[in-house]
Amino acid sequence: MSDRWVLGVDIGGTTVLVGLVPEGGGAPLGLRSMATPSMGGADGAVGHIRRMADEAVVEALGPDGKGWADVIGVGVGCPGPLDLELGIVLDAFNLGWKDYPLRDRLAEGLDRPISLDNDANCATYGEYWLGAGAPFRSVVCVTLGTGIGGGIIVDGELVHGASGTAGEVGHMTIDFTGRRCACGNYGCLEAYASGPNIALRAREGVEAGVDSILLDLAGGDVSDISAATVSEGVVAGDSYAAEVMLETARILGVGIANIINVVNPDAVIIVGGVTRAGDQLFVPLRSEVRRRAFKVAEAACEILPGLLPETAGVIGAAGLFLKTRAG
Amino acid sequence: MSDRWVLGVDIGGTTVLVGLVPEGGGAPLGLRSMATPSMGGADGAVGHIRRMADEAVVEALGPDGKGWADVIGVGVGCPGPLDLELGIVLDAFNLGWKDYPLRDRLAEGLDRPISLDNDANCATYGEYWLGAGAPFRSVVCVTLGTGIGGGIIVDGELVHGASGTAGEVGHMTIDFTGRRCACGNYGCLEAYASGPNIALRAREGVEAGVDSILLDLAGGDVSDISAATVSEGVVAGDSYAAEVMLETARILGVGIANIINVVNPDAVIIVGGVTRAGDQLFVPLRSEVRRRAFKVAEAACEILPGLLPETAGVIGAAGLFLKTRAG
Repeated sequence: MSDRWVLGVDIGGTTVLVGLVPEGGGAPLGLRSMATPSMGGADGAVGHIRRMADEAVVEALGPDGKGWADVIGVGVGCPGPLDLELGIVLDAFNLGWKDYPLRDRLAEGLDRPISLDNDANCATYGEYWLGAGAPFRSVVCVTLGTGIGGGIIVDGELVHGASGTAGEVGHMTIDFTGRRCACGNYGCLEAYASGPNIALRAREGVEAGVDSILLDLAGGDVSDISAATVSEGVVAGDSYAAEVMLETARILGVGIANIINVVNPDAVIIVGGVTRAGDQLFVPLRSEVRRRAFKVAEAACEILPGLLPETAGVIGAAGLFLKTRAG
Repeated sequence: MSDRWVLGVDIGGTTVLVGLVPEGGGAPLGLRSMATPSMGGADGAVGHIRRMADEAVVEALGPDGKGWADVIGVGVGCPGPLDLELGIVLDAFNLGWKDYPLRDRLAEGLDRPISLDNDANCATYGEYWLGAGAPFRSVVCVTLGTGIGGGIIVDGELVHGASGTAGEVGHMTIDFTGRRCACGNYGCLEAYASGPNIALRAREGVEAGVDSILLDLAGGDVSDISAATVSEGVVAGDSYAAEVMLETARILGVGIANIINVVNPDAVIIVGGVTRAGDQLFVPLRSEVRRRAFKVAEAACEILPGLLPETAGVIGAAGLFLKTRAG
């Protein structure tokens, strides 16, 4: 058992997750989660995070709360854009937080040194430190969810870029005359392969009368067909769901081939519920990548599902605190 | 005047360029060039490079050849793929060299320590060290020529990637159902915006009977319309040439927006003859980038033409030798 701990805090648009990560690496203990919208804004969230941290310390390190003495710091992941130098959330529109000095407020609330990075970078670092990326030096992580994000590690170092948005691959154009994206442009990767857009493509076929069980799986309401419904349909052997998944795989393959050509990493790690489709996703995805990426770059790169679906963010936030302290 | 020099060698598919770069940085002296195909293969090239180096030393450092004593090493740039660890050219198909131990053969021929990197990385490092990238920490260079290549510098370090192909942006898919590329795939950036493909797009319109002076500029033979003809047409005020350039700018804008989203550099530097079109290229290109890239990433990134059109490769190869030596 480790003697010292780092509190990992993973702030997402849906949920805030808090847990204690051992300094030497390992699964977080005392995990606590809470729905973000019910926290009452940024100041409210700071209070709730303090309470969740207290609970985590009690559960993991003993009921008297003395365990706090062994918590050496706090790593926080938060949707961006952030000002990493000043520790400020500039404009996280899915949180509704703007110009909020998150690092300082949490440092006051928790009385510990704090590191802050964006959520996708934390998840990337978590997978690199203790997950699917652990055997590799250079890793790109692609996070598939409501949006598509990501992070880049080159030779063990997180690439932040000039404004902290390196690795944000969701709005990569893969078809410049293509599908309209919520961002206003056309043909972004996210316009095809985010969760809501997988669902949208599936609904389009169902509305056009294609033969499929997806409508039944969604309880008869076409608007209830989600990306998860598509995954369910794939597992149940529905051929239209398989077709939507195949198209998703090919489109992700295009985006990942681009990433491989530009960054030439040892591994691309895909994180998100859609990876539950397993071979139905990864086999055609790898085949599309093989078709499109440089042979030498493709041959050098493993494409793998993440191993820490729930906790990569908490683990990576804590890991980045340790790295910041060491470096 | 510097006391010590590095021989820079820039091996390209068309030309080999050799020159002496002062250790403290500066324009190369004693520049010598020779057509690559007339060199007689890889072994022939090593001999010619030795001869060109001798001439450069005599011209720059004195007629007795004693200047060689002040040449501390050799930096070489060569088309890849390369095995950087072993210093081997694996398969440079536009040179016709395969599995050739270039570093060792040049080290014997020149009796100096040698560093080797791929040509696009050398050009990138040249622009970063002494050219348009000098004010910045993180730079992506895009080289537009017969093909489209590039290189990436993050926080002052060249990113090689797992197999030395990081930054090779030419085969990034920008339209996955788009134009056939020579690589066999569809919709690669290079299929639209390389020199030959700019020419091809221009010829398609001329063949279809569009009103343009391009045919006259090419001496009446449509197959003689090149990318340079298009640039000439733009300068001469031909509206069809301007249209082809505008389309080129927009397509490059898509690719560069993707690069900015993924890498988030301080600057993207565009190198190649097409940059002579100046504002006719850069104004619509920047506007397309603004439309497509993340606001914060776009705002943090300058898009600039290279400042060392002929010598970035020689300078960068020499600079990388110094950097390798320094550790």
